[in-house]
Amino acid sequence: MTTTISKIGKYNFTAEAVHCDIKQNLFISTLCHHILRAADLHSTERNFGMNYLKTLNKTWVLSRFALEIFQMPKAYDNFSIETWVENVMKNFTARNFAILNQAEQTLGFCRSIWSMIDTETRHPIDLFSVHNGEIVNYITPEKDCPIAGFSNWKTNSNTKCTKQIQILYSDCDSNGHLNSVKYIDHVLDLWDLDFHKTFHVCRMEIAYQAECYFGDTLLIYSTEIPTENANTKEFRIQICKLLASENTEIEVSKLKVCFIKQ
Amino acid sequence: MTTTISKIGKYNFTAEAVHCDIKQNLFISTLCHHILRAADLHSTERNFGMNYLKTLNKTWVLSRFALEIFQMPKAYDNFSIETWVENVMKNFTARNFAILNQAEQTLGFCRSIWSMIDTETRHPIDLFSVHNGEIVNYITPEKDCPIAGFSNWKTNSNTKCTKQIQILYSDCDSNGHLNSVKYIDHVLDLWDLDFHKTFHVCRMEIAYQAECYFGDTLLIYSTEIPTENANTKEFRIQICKLLASENTEIEVSKLKVCFIKQ
Repeated sequence: MTTTISKIGKYNFTAEAVHCDIKQNLFISTLCHHILRAADLHSTERNFGMNYLKTLNKTWVLSRFALEIFQMPKAYDNFSIETWVENVMKNFTARNFAILNQAEQTLGFCRSIWSMIDTETRHPIDLFSVHNGEIVNYITPEKDCPIAGFSNWKTNSNTKCTKQIQILYSDCDSNGHLNSVKYIDHVLDLWDLDFHKTFHVCRMEIAYQAECYFGDTLLIYSTEIPTENANTKEFRIQICKLLASENTEIEVSKLKVCFIKQ
Repeated sequence: MTTTISKIGKYNFTAEAVHCDIKQNLFISTLCHHILRAADLHSTERNFGMNYLKTLNKTWVLSRFALEIFQMPKAYDNFSIETWVENVMKNFTARNFAILNQAEQTLGFCRSIWSMIDTETRHPIDLFSVHNGEIVNYITPEKDCPIAGFSNWKTNSNTKCTKQIQILYSDCDSNGHLNSVKYIDHVLDLWDLDFHKTFHVCRMEIAYQAECYFGDTLLIYSTEIPTENANTKEFRIQICKLLASENTEIEVSKLKVCFIKQ
């Protein structure tokens, strides 16, 4: 018996009160956890999930992430996340997401770029080599993701370090790396509660460039970019890892965070 | 039509890979989030949940929490949490929990003590005044929770401060207080990854004594207590809030954390 599985996956979540911020909005980092969970459920159902890849000594690595959110789920709201594969190349795949409320209205969209690596050599894997390249059967170019793609921007090397943090036990994922979502918590912690009461994240872009591990010291640089609209704010954030032995630092990630007054 | 609702609630969860630590175990803090979620679901179904209480300007406040865990759910494990009311007094109620794996084997138990307060005056509420004291209909003394009750211990005033932290945006719940579960993350972050690879939390007790807010500076004091068994470790943790204006500090919470080598 052959079962046809749909190209688009849709998963239900609840904005639990314990995961809501001072505005009763779901934390952006929790939303991103759910987005990554939707990606894993979708890929697992189609035989290329993290847990299966582990048996092949392979894993997915998140490379780029862009989220635009028009309205955050509020405490106790039910919502769903749709996800689909936009396209696949030899070393990268683009996966998109739509966040919908219970009335099926769109709350936001998300784009992501993933590579697959060999967990021993840390080298990229040819995506077409897994399950005879069956991933291409799920490409869904006809499904629209109407938010801007990934932008390129230079980080400002003249900015003064805004904050220094050390990677602790609760920051680390099951591979001992800084959890992809923890970057978001640490960056949004740059602003105080009054700022967060006034401004909401409307777009966030993250470029993950190098892995960080337990004990690493991270330096966070933040630069505000002037905007034309008084109700918006834009920040470019650079996260660097201190290489104490070489008395230098390397960029491990950069983010662009746009806020809107509401 | 009268619907009889059972006294014991049972809720299903999955140990999501994104919430698992270096040992592939669910983070204790995530388990505690699920435990609090189970409490809220159980009380909501019986008309005394947080969301309903908000309409009355009342809320539950967690006062004591004790968890004993024999085996943590691993990444991708399904598990369930049972919860029931052990007893109710005028100003306090005791709620217990059992954590079960898919084969219905017990993974751990949890005890908790709650009070209800008026969110404006912050004064305690008579629990029998809500819904004509219907909460007593759900008291389940016959259900066993075979772990030790809450202990009393003195904090050691001679201990040197182990760590200083500041309460940031991601630490705060929807009331602007330090989230009950975040205490656990901050305390477990006292130990490094190698320690956590070797030792598992087997029992944790928390006494919540005073509320903490965004911007507060917390001082964490940790004292190791000698144990008779070389495979166990016990720590007593005191969390104090710095009152800079008075150049003093007050105890806001204390924890007892027991680890076992596995």
